[in-house]
Parts: sequence; C-alpha cells; structure tokens
Amino acid sequence: MHLIAIGGSDAGISAALRARELDPSVDVTVVVADSYPNFSICGIPYFFSGEVQPWQSLAHRTAADLEATGMRLRLDTFATSIDVSGQRLSVRDANGSESEIAYDELMVGTGALPSSAGIAGLDTLGRTTACTCCTMGDTFALDQHLTDRDPKTAIIIGAGYVGLEMAEALTVRGLKVTQLQRGPEVLSTLDPELGALVHRELDGRGVEVVTNALVESVSRTDNGLVVAGRHFGDAFERTADLVLAVVGVRPNTDLLERAGAQLGAGRAVVVDETMRTGLPHVFAAGDGVVTHHRLLGVTYLPLGTTAHKQGRVAGENALGGSARFAGSVGTQVLKVFDLVAARTGLREHEATPVGFTPVSTTAVADDHKAYYPGAQPISIRITGDSKTGKLLGAQLVGARGTETAKRVDTFATALFHGTTVAGISDLDLSYTPPLGSPWDAVQIATQRWEREHAKVQVNA
Amino acid sequence: MHLIAIGGSDAGISAALRARELDPSVDVTVVVADSYPNFSICGIPYFFSGEVQPWQSLAHRTAADLEATGMRLRLDTFATSIDVSGQRLSVRDANGSESEIAYDELMVGTGALPSSAGIAGLDTLGRTTACTCCTMGDTFALDQHLTDRDPKTAIIIGAGYVGLEMAEALTVRGLKVTQLQRGPEVLSTLDPELGALVHRELDGRGVEVVTNALVESVSRTDNGLVVAGRHFGDAFERTADLVLAVVGVRPNTDLLERAGAQLGAGRAVVVDETMRTGLPHVFAAGDGVVTHHRLLGVTYLPLGTTAHKQGRVAGENALGGSARFAGSVGTQVLKVFDLVAARTGLREHEATPVGFTPVSTTAVADDHKAYYPGAQPISIRITGDSKTGKLLGAQLVGARGTETAKRVDTFATALFHGTTVAGISDLDLSYTPPLGSPWDAVQIATQRWEREHAKVQVNA
Repeated sequence: MHLIAIGGSDAGISAALRARELDPSVDVTVVVADSYPNFSICGIPYFFSGEVQPWQSLAHRTAADLEATGMRLRLDTFATSIDVSGQRLSVRDANGSESEIAYDELMVGTGALPSSAGIAGLDTLGRTTACTCCTMGDTFALDQHLTDRDPKTAIIIGAGYVGLEMAEALTVRGLKVTQLQRGPEVLSTLDPELGALVHRELDGRGVEVVTNALVESVSRTDNGLVVAGRHFGDAFERTADLVLAVVGVRPNTDLLERAGAQLGAGRAVVVDETMRTGLPHVFAAGDGVVTHHRLLGVTYLPLGTTAHKQGRVAGENALGGSARFAGSVGTQVLKVFDLVAARTGLREHEATPVGFTPVSTTAVADDHKAYYPGAQPISIRITGDSKTGKLLGAQLVGARGTETAKRVDTFATALFHGTTVAGISDLDLSYTPPLGSPWDAVQIATQRWEREHAKVQVNA
Repeated sequence: MHLIAIGGSDAGISAALRARELDPSVDVTVVVADSYPNFSICGIPYFFSGEVQPWQSLAHRTAADLEATGMRLRLDTFATSIDVSGQRLSVRDANGSESEIAYDELMVGTGALPSSAGIAGLDTLGRTTACTCCTMGDTFALDQHLTDRDPKTAIIIGAGYVGLEMAEALTVRGLKVTQLQRGPEVLSTLDPELGALVHRELDGRGVEVVTNALVESVSRTDNGLVVAGRHFGDAFERTADLVLAVVGVRPNTDLLERAGAQLGAGRAVVVDETMRTGLPHVFAAGDGVVTHHRLLGVTYLPLGTTAHKQGRVAGENALGGSARFAGSVGTQVLKVFDLVAARTGLREHEATPVGFTPVSTTAVADDHKAYYPGAQPISIRITGDSKTGKLLGAQLVGARGTETAKRVDTFATALFHGTTVAGISDLDLSYTPPLGSPWDAVQIATQRWEREHAKVQVNA
C-alpha cells in the first residue's frame, strides 16, 4: 500500500501523519513543491515583525521530524499530472527531470494561490508585491527586499486577516503603513460596527487606514510604487516604497482539473465529506477544495484549521477508514496589535440566502467581574434566527488578555451542535471573579439578544 | 400576583430579576437575612487580599439598582416559617418583631452553611475561624480581626477552592500561611497529578502545605490557636495566630424541611428541573437544593453559576413559564496566584458508580504556537468511557494568561451536548499563532486520549 500526498502544507502533511499514525506499515510519500514542508504559513507575519526568529522556527515539524514518523519526503518536486486510471503521478524535480510514481491512493493538497483581484500591473511587480504570505519563497524574497532596499513607507492593499497582520508587522518593523480597503470598513469578515473597533486600534498604532478605496493598478515610477484607483468615485493615487496586495486567494485546482475533477463552489474542487474527489483513489483536501459548512452547506472557505481536519479525514480514508469531515462553522480569529477579533457562524447577509431570518444584537460585557482589577470590555455581536431562535453566529472583539479567542470557541462548539441562542444560557461555563462572571460574557450577550428578539411565553 | 424570593444571594436575586424582566407588572419581594443583598460571595477572598476595595464594590448590584428594577427588598429580615396551605411567610425583622407576608408564589434560596467537618472546638471560636466566606457579616468580622489583632501566622484547614483563594489572600496580606489538607493532595476536586501542580505553585509562593493532615480539634491557648490532629497516623499540633476552617458547606434546609419539603442527595431539598419543591407554590434554588447533573443524575453540587441558572428558571416558572434547569456538568475554575485550575464533567471515581468504564490520559500542550513569544504549557487530563468513547470529563491546569478558563468551557459545551472524545477533533475552533494552534490544545489532549484508548477501524 503506497499513499502519495501532494502538498507540504496543512492538508498534505495531516493526511500523511494520520495514515502513518493509524498504520505504521503503510508506505507514505509526500511530494512537496518547495524545500519547506510543514511550515506555519499563518506565522509568517510574525517573522516579518521580528517576533519569530529564525525562520526555521516556523516549521510545525522539521523534515527530520516528519521522516522520523516513517514518511518519505520528495522536496522541490512539482506534481505535473495524474494518470488516474494507471494510478501514477508525474513529477518534475528541481533539475527539471520528469518521472512517474505509482500510488495506490493519492491525496492532493495543492492549496490556493494569491488572487490579483483584477489589479493591473500586479503580476509584473513580482513576488515582493503580490503577497499573500503563502510560501516561504515569497517570504524570503520580501524579507530580502526589506533588508536590501530599506523601504520607509508601505501600502497594503486589503484589510483582511493577513493584510492586518502584515500592517502590524511592518509597523513594528518601523515602516509607515497605509492600509487600503475596498469596502466601508476594515476586516470585512465582521460587521462594520465591530470592524470599526479594529479600525480604531490601527489608528491608535499609526496605521493610516483608507476605506472605500478601489485599487485599479499598481505601477513602478522613479518616485516609488504608485497605487491608483478610485476613492468614493474620485480618482486617487498613493505612492510608497513598498506595496503589498493581500486581496484573497483562489483555489489551486490545475492538477486535479486536468485529471478530470469537477469544480464547484468558489471554483474549488468538489469533494464529499470523505474527501473523495470522485476520481478513483484520488482524495483532496485543504484550500483547493470546497468546504462543507454546517450552516451553509457546500461553500468555499479556505482555513488552515479546516485543512488540518480534512487532511486527517483523507489520510484515514485512504487506508480504508470511514471518517467524515464534520463540517466547518467558519471560526476565525485575528490578533492585531493588542486587539483580538473573532467570529464563528454566519452574519446576516450570509444567513438570509440559505433561508434564515437573521437578526443581530451587540452587547458589551466585561471579561471578568468589574470589581477585580483589570476587567476589560468585550464587544459581542450575536446573530440568531428570529423565527426559530437558532443561534446563527457570533462576532467578538476584545483586548488581548480577555480570553476572547477561546470565548469564540464556546460559540463554535454550541453552533456545531445546532443550539439556540437561549440554549447558551443553559451551558455550564466556568466562573471565578478574576476570569469570568456568573453569567459569562457570552451569556450576557445571548441574553441581550433574547430580550430584544425573543419573547418567552409566560401566563402570569 | 405577588412573588416572594427568600435570600439575597444568587438564587433569590436571579429569580426576582427574571420575574421582573418577564413581567414588569408582577409584585416581587426579596427577603434578605442581612443588609447585603446581591453581594459577590466569590469575591470575598479578593477583598481580604486588598485587590477589591472598598467592600461595597463586591455588590453585583446595589440595593438601589435592585429597587430600580421594581422589586421590593426586605433587608435584615429572617424568614422563620412557611404556612404552605395559607400561602403566608412568617418573618422576623432586625428588632425582633414577627410578621406575616402573603404570597402567590414563593421561591426559597436560603443557600448553604459552613460545615465544621467534625472538628472539635470550631463552634466555640466564632465567626473569625469557621470561615467559608459565606456572608458579608463574617467578612467584616474577620477583616476587623485582621486589623485589630494583626496576626502574623495563619493555618487554613482545607485546600479546596475557597481555602486556596484565602491562602493566596492572606499571603498577599503578609501572613505566613500553613495549609492543612486531609487528602493526599491539595484541590481534591482534581486528580492528584494535576493537584500537584497547584501544590507546587503554593510552595513557590511561600505557603506551607501539609497534606494527609486530619484535623481533630482547634483550641485557644496563651500562645495562640492550636490545631491538633493526626498526620499519617501520628499526632501533630500546629499553633498560629489565626485559624480558618474552610471545609465545605451543607445545605441550609431548615425552613423548607419544617414546611414539609423532602431531602435528597447531600441532604439538600429535593426539587425537579422546574425548581418546584413539591409543596404547592413553593420553588427553591441554589446551594440549598439538589443539583440535576447531566452525567450523574441528581446529586448535590453547590455552585454560584448553578444557583444563577436555577434561580432564573424558578423566577420564570413562578410566573407560569415552562423553563427547565438543563443540568450541570460540574464546571469549576480557580485562580490561585498565577495558576488557573479548572475542571468539568467527571473524574474516574465519579464516573464508575454511574455505569461508565472511565480511562484517563494527561497531555501537556502549549497554549499557542511555540514559535510565537510567550507560549506556556497547559496540562489537560481527559477522561472518557473506554467502551463508547464518550467524553466524561476534562481537567486543566495552566498559567494565568493561557486562556485555560475558557478552554474548559469548550469541554463544558461539548459535554453538555454529549459528545465523544473523538468528536472534540471535529470542533471548528479558532486559530491564530499568538493564541492557539491549528489543533487547539484541547484537541491535542483528546487526540492523545484517542491514541491511547481508542482504536480506529481501518481496513488497510
């Protein structure tokens, strides 16, 4: 039995680890396009900020750690095509030589590629500009650029998770950062009311934020890089020494598409909950495939946590197991400077198309009893279905140290089990005055939603 | 409609607030034995440590806040007897005058009283010694004693939640504290392996811990207060300026017992999940009543969080509602110095008698990615049923700042919904390198349990 996993990031490595864990006799090869298997892509911004040094420490596991589990690594090896019926994978190594590897089961984790979001000129500026912090190669190129050219100013196009983390990283590194956001507020994965709290944190740290800025082109001039576009309909131009475009990703489906796999939501490869592609003996997982979502059905929502889970399922099933990916609820968290912003589940505009009647309420509750020193407010926005009372989503913004990241997990766990907003008050959550309240902040928020949107029937 | 709630602590006030919230036309009287309604009893140790000042800030709500909700307070009023068939409550005010109040519905939240655990002499030493930090009156008496007598040394009998919090408080206040624990390890609500981490924290802070110390008597001598008993079978004696016995509580059932209510688990008053006592129009909630537990059935487990939930249910049902207390899973958390210790669900010796076949595993996982500065280990002990894979309980000990208190809530929420140990890996928990891992620490712990105790079936 020979399992090949393509991809050295979350999905591929998770599949390989799971297979080796379940059956140490199984032969596992991981085909990695570069020299950096199992690196924590999510940690790259902290390398740029200088908080993580040296770059080697970004490895979840080293190549030696991985090989110690009994898997074989083929580094700097690019998978070029799949012979599905022959169960053979064609690869090209760093020297350009082509070869074939036979497999019994194949697991494809080719991930995603940076999107250019239709911004002209982005492609010509090279890897120091079109940054999604996707690869270690991009990371070294940008780091070299920062060292060699010593840029003083930077424009970051996009204010999502990575864009905000890079704004922090470059600010910490001493650059003056301007952040351009197409929409009306930063971190558009949150409602603007909560995004505004993140905006305020950026303001306070010296990041200049320009919202409603539609970037159309980036070009190099003698004065630096020029970003041009429209701001509330008017033309605008900004110049900086460095420009990073962090405007999302698109699934990297080329290999599987050519092998005959179907594309679905977000033009990602269709898989079922067992991570099968429909092609015999071919599994796929991670940022290149559709996401089964417990509230939305099939969607595209690439996240590292999901890739780990999907890869683990694929690795188990490649060995004949019957694991199923239980589904995402879209849980995400961001630390930017001293603020933590998190969400899980749906916002109103996501819930309406799938048949819910969502209503939302924001509460501000202390992370612990106000009488104990150091209490800080957490803003918690609850979205629930006004017809059934079902919990649909929660968004939280609080200072670092308020346990906001793990409070979103309480909502995520409850959402996973399909609870109602009122059901959150039934949860037996922990309490001690330095760390909580008898009704935890999460319950104070859901009780507020109940008061505004639900009517308990009593026959007084 | 006139609702009387007896008790100014969690259960009574929660019932009164819920009734007023649901129906602002309902007449609500709260009968409070002392002058301090709605004080945070759990905050008292932080008053002694000096972290919470003045004592008034311990009030969850002031008397004025409560009256602003439209409820009536009868302070310094002791409920002496219930005329169930006549629906009348007899009370005695501070001047000793007796009177009767008619009610339509009655909710009794008389709480618990300190236990003396059979220690001779404890009763004669007064309220500065038999301390469970149950009342503000006790608090003032002890504070006065600390101010007037300026004790240099203290013995704390008991090393449960309050005993440990008081050890910290008195240490912070400058006393040399000796903590005596009957069992083999402090914090006996955790397995000794995790209790040992708390023990180490106490050692490091200068608290002298003596385990296996069975205290038999306390007496006053010219040299101070003498605690005598047996240590591993040998006689031992310790002398200190101050002795606090914090050896648990017993339900305060006198009023309801005399009215005809039944006693059940832990000699607490029997109630059903609607908080009805079986006596017509008489509800009860809080530390005086039995606890419906989702894994254990009916038990006695007095906790403030539970009292809040039960009181809220009683308040709603007193108005004709149909609320049910959904059940405890025994979630508790303690901060002692810079350590946080938490648990939810069952330990092995609790699970076996109710039919489970529990097995446990301890993992140590970082609170966030090790490459990001400040990562610290959390010890997580998972108990699951070896036959069904059902999650039975989790115990966690980590440094303050590791979000341990809210990580126990993930387990509590999952336990509430009856998940398996393996099901924890399906949860879509949040991740960013400064605050977690792609598999959160809680999942690293359950995966370790799976590796040791569960075998996935694969047909490789």
